[in-house]
Amino acid sequence: MEICMVKGKQIAYEVYGQADENPPLLILNGIMMSMKSWQKFIPEITKNRQLILMDFFDQGQSERCEGLDYDHSLQVEAVIAVMDAVGRAEYDVSGISYGAQVGLQVALASPNRVRKLALFNVSAYTSPWLKDIGEAWNRTARLHDPESYYYVALPYIYSNMFYTKNIQWMQARKALLVEFFTDQFLDAMIRLTDSSRNFDIRERLAEITCPVLVVGADHDYITPINEARSLHDHLKRSELVELKDCGHASMYEKPHAFYQLMEGFFSQKHDIIIA
Amino acid sequence: MEICMVKGKQIAYEVYGQADENPPLLILNGIMMSMKSWQKFIPEITKNRQLILMDFFDQGQSERCEGLDYDHSLQVEAVIAVMDAVGRAEYDVSGISYGAQVGLQVALASPNRVRKLALFNVSAYTSPWLKDIGEAWNRTARLHDPESYYYVALPYIYSNMFYTKNIQWMQARKALLVEFFTDQFLDAMIRLTDSSRNFDIRERLAEITCPVLVVGADHDYITPINEARSLHDHLKRSELVELKDCGHASMYEKPHAFYQLMEGFFSQKHDIIIA
Amino acid sequence: MEICMVKGKQIAYEVYGQADENPPLLILNGIMMSMKSWQKFIPEITKNRQLILMDFFDQGQSERCEGLDYDHSLQVEAVIAVMDAVGRAEYDVSGISYGAQVGLQVALASPNRVRKLALFNVSAYTSPWLKDIGEAWNRTARLHDPESYYYVALPYIYSNMFYTKNIQWMQARKALLVEFFTDQFLDAMIRLTDSSRNFDIRERLAEITCPVLVVGADHDYITPINEARSLHDHLKRSELVELKDCGHASMYEKPHAFYQLMEGFFSQKHDIIIA
Amino acid sequence: MEICMVKGKQIAYEVYGQADENPPLLILNGIMMSMKSWQKFIPEITKNRQLILMDFFDQGQSERCEGLDYDHSLQVEAVIAVMDAVGRAEYDVSGISYGAQVGLQVALASPNRVRKLALFNVSAYTSPWLKDIGEAWNRTARLHDPESYYYVALPYIYSNMFYTKNIQWMQARKALLVEFFTDQFLDAMIRLTDSSRNFDIRERLAEITCPVLVVGADHDYITPINEARSLHDHLKRSELVELKDCGHASMYEKPHAFYQLMEGFFSQKHDIIIA
Repeated sequence: MEICMVKGKQIAYEVYGQADENPPLLILNGIMMSMKSWQKFIPEITKNRQLILMDFFDQGQSERCEGLDYDHSLQVEAVIAVMDAVGRAEYDVSGISYGAQVGLQVALASPNRVRKLALFNVSAYTSPWLKDIGEAWNRTARLHDPESYYYVALPYIYSNMFYTKNIQWMQARKALLVEFFTDQFLDAMIRLTDSSRNFDIRERLAEITCPVLVVGADHDYITPINEARSLHDHLKRSELVELKDCGHASMYEKPHAFYQLMEGFFSQKHDIIIA
Repeated sequence: MEICMVKGKQIAYEVYGQADENPPLLILNGIMMSMKSWQKFIPEITKNRQLILMDFFDQGQSERCEGLDYDHSLQVEAVIAVMDAVGRAEYDVSGISYGAQVGLQVALASPNRVRKLALFNVSAYTSPWLKDIGEAWNRTARLHDPESYYYVALPYIYSNMFYTKNIQWMQARKALLVEFFTDQFLDAMIRLTDSSRNFDIRERLAEITCPVLVVGADHDYITPINEARSLHDHLKRSELVELKDCGHASMYEKPHAFYQLMEGFFSQKHDIIIA
Repeated sequence: MEICMVKGKQIAYEVYGQADENPPLLILNGIMMSMKSWQKFIPEITKNRQLILMDFFDQGQSERCEGLDYDHSLQVEAVIAVMDAVGRAEYDVSGISYGAQVGLQVALASPNRVRKLALFNVSAYTSPWLKDIGEAWNRTARLHDPESYYYVALPYIYSNMFYTKNIQWMQARKALLVEFFTDQFLDAMIRLTDSSRNFDIRERLAEITCPVLVVGADHDYITPINEARSLHDHLKRSELVELKDCGHASMYEKPHAFYQLMEGFFSQKHDIIIA
Repeated sequence: MEICMVKGKQIAYEVYGQADENPPLLILNGIMMSMKSWQKFIPEITKNRQLILMDFFDQGQSERCEGLDYDHSLQVEAVIAVMDAVGRAEYDVSGISYGAQVGLQVALASPNRVRKLALFNVSAYTSPWLKDIGEAWNRTARLHDPESYYYVALPYIYSNMFYTKNIQWMQARKALLVEFFTDQFLDAMIRLTDSSRNFDIRERLAEITCPVLVVGADHDYITPINEARSLHDHLKRSELVELKDCGHASMYEKPHAFYQLMEGFFSQKHDIIIA
């Protein structure tokens, strides 16, 4: 694990594999994730490119922000600091959910640093609907009751099909998460959730000029598929893929499709022009 | 309002329009609804058929069941009691969500009483996923904090598109509901939610022999569309319609489609056989 | 069968059922259909409303137009002539494919005569793609070889699923149609197909003010589903229903859904306003 | 261009790029294609793996089969002969339409030679519907009228959206193809089409044990999306991706998605196991 300092606080990141002629791939976590969440993907990804993982403020091994009221722009700073620390001129950036939203804003803030963007389960703004769901999460988090937080926040992250089919894995996961949902963790989740409240870059999408892959999922109950379609419609150079029978945590529900879409997208060097 | 007694408790029902040669249409509420929820539909429905509304135990003007641990079978008894009280031999039955699930069980318990079934936003069982969502509802209900209950339970009843587009209506609705979510109401909601915990009629679907209309919605985050497809696949005589850009509360999101599908289905007298 | 004269030629129509307080329902045929195609639907439809069927110029029992080069506007005249002959002030109009396209133009030409429009498997223009498919039909028709015409034109009218599942019905139908595809019939088909070549009312859709039901089908290989969506997006007061697992001839593939959607739509008298 | 002999006839193939530790990728053409059709993809594909193209019997630079009545098994022999000639133990195989169907049969005939299969726009059998469409193609081919063949066969190979949007490219293509549709070409097309008539491996799908990627398209009017779903349901180790707004010639309509899905799929070395 490496550390870089942003606004006087520690941001943790990790570098896997050797630098080569490809831009390194920087993956940005969803809100409840951390660098550890990508463990199973590392061997495949590092076959073809250097991989950089990082924890956002209030995530994993990065520093907590008690008492700080922040929005996505702080996380954008963290990403750019990690890019500076690694020291390459250009990066491929992939993100899921919260990380995909931050990724879009990194491409706006520092367009020269982002060669390509692969975005999974993403929206271009926090809709009133999603804001009220965030309110449910945070009201429950404030109870400091790990089980209640699990029941309110977790089931909707998965498709009903995946959750039901893998109910034993989910129950094992619940046992694990309930340990993990300490008061400190839940307080950090409140801040992370609040940092998305005013997210809205719908007016700025046309400024993004790099190639973007937008991957939506038909059973995504957090950023439903219409959000992916709308994002795609407003970007200049995007491709849209819609995963069938898949929920919000596409990396868990369809790990093969997740890896393959990302790898195939970043592998392509030039436009293939037919018509 | 009429009253009939079931197990020593009052069940409220209402009869609209005149009896005619058609079977009356009996509509069964979703879990958080009451007879009042159908007000806007009454003029259209009663043009062509007699309409019967009712509140389930622990709903609307029917009696509360403090201290009673019950499942759907109690509500099935209530439906049959209302059928007896109205006194017609045969009924068309329509239901949404909870009401659709009870409707399926009425068709099993008393097949001769049900000419046709129209089911909206329904599943054939309470999946582990839905069970855990019910757990979130009930843990929050026990707090007796109306706003928290609103945020945990309400947004997911609507598609993100409808909720966002009609955010002012939703906010007015929230103000109303928060008044409505008294301790007594929330305790009734806990019992109603619990009454669905063990619902599972997947093995009995082939016994249902009347024509069934199954209407699912692509943005239904409570009984996702795969549940409608699976129900349709296992019924003997069913038709499936999938509503686009529609959430769980299809009667509110697509009232015209809701009315028209129901009316068209009940209007048809004989099979139209082409191939 | 009744006859009315339009431009010196006979247009055949039929009136089923008694006039009542509802506007009569006038159904307009698809290109290869005739009044006979609706036989199975008559008993259900006439339960609730008076029904009028008609054959377009060059169809069924209406007059052939050898040597005449015409477009949809001639058929619009025929429809209005039938409306005049029947003598009611207002009609509900339903159409499939060619008939739906003519129906839209009747609503433009004579808006006061059309209370509501139900359109199945329709597009707002003949795209270059559909034009080239029409060219395939007509080049084959000119061979005056009934079997070749069957193979070129018929399979794509059905979904691969329906055609395959009902292959014996299709083969019986083929035997029948091959008898039916006389030189005279095929020459009429050439004229009917040509009459659609320049159809394009995309710029005029906003002028249509009556309620419109647009029904598309996901396996429609003649007017694919994007045409239905686009039509719906540009109409002022429309509802869209997308039929699953259904081809272009929705009235044959899903006769129950076809009847029910039409009946439910025409049955509704007033807007049901929720949000 | 290289040549190998199969049953006394010449099969043409080409090898691009250097052999490396990856299995070479062998791409199998759709029915109306040839090695030339892949020109635009070669630079991207050969960045990461050796590429082998080939023409089937009666295609491109391989030998014509006048007077020979054959089925897919002859083409399977041709593929295995090319594999022998190139001399590697194992291949990744990708195919579209006809080529995907042959690819499935190569995996059955010689499972040890096929590491992975990527199949685009494919079905597991020639349905009665597709058989009748083939009959339309062949009746028209026998006329030896290139324009008629274009109109009957070509438009349906594309989605209505792509064809319409790129109508000028299509018209240029038409001018080219009409030159190309010589009597000899059309006679070869008749034999190729006939070679698919009895294709049906539905009963053997469970024997295929290598990983398979199945890519369907929602506007595929030759092998509609239900065929891809059904194939996926019956294979042991398959992934399904459904392309939105895409027709049968996915390599032309969505060249980026085509390349990326193929590259991502073949790039993955090991299962990523989450739940």
